[in-house]
Amino acid sequence: MVKLIAMYKTPSDIGEFEKHYFDVHMPLIEKMPGLLKTEVSKISGMPGQESKYHMMAEMYFENMDKLNESMASPEGRAAGKDLMGFAKDYVIMMFGDVKE
Amino acid sequence: MVKLIAMYKTPSDIGEFEKHYFDVHMPLIEKMPGLLKTEVSKISGMPGQESKYHMMAEMYFENMDKLNESMASPEGRAAGKDLMGFAKDYVIMMFGDVKE
Repeated sequence: MVKLIAMYKTPSDIGEFEKHYFDVHMPLIEKMPGLLKTEVSKISGMPGQESKYHMMAEMYFENMDKLNESMASPEGRAAGKDLMGFAKDYVIMMFGDVKE
Repeated sequence: MVKLIAMYKTPSDIGEFEKHYFDVHMPLIEKMPGLLKTEVSKISGMPGQESKYHMMAEMYFENMDKLNESMASPEGRAAGKDLMGFAKDYVIMMFGDVKE
């Protein structure tokens, strides 16, 4: 299994960011073909070590081919376009190859 | 559910790092009380966007109380001590409050 990981740095307006994320972006993500599950987590730092990240979203797919196909699909491109519109300055995207 | 997230930046010696992680550190993690599951992922960047992270480990607990208790336990302290010994310069630790 693989996952597409989005790490969001703390946005300037957390309320607006979260409203867009959960009301607009998440429904677009959920339309992506081949998506097995999504896990969204609010991030906080350890005691004495502040976190620069506010949120992490992990989107799971069967393998990299399915993930790439999904990102290239109309639904994937719609989600990507929306992401760049509201979170371009906050988001870091990565792939994760899940070992266990 | 909550998780303890360890993001590892790319180490100077990947082979040595992974050997220690999987042969020594993981068995210590697995002894931590209250641990529900662990997910370890190899990280790679997006096309045209290299990742500074090499690996991510997510350790799941029922709630923050259980996580804090586990980190303060002898097994948690042993895992923390080992972590500081082999990955202090590479690791960023965070808490995640899993939303869905």
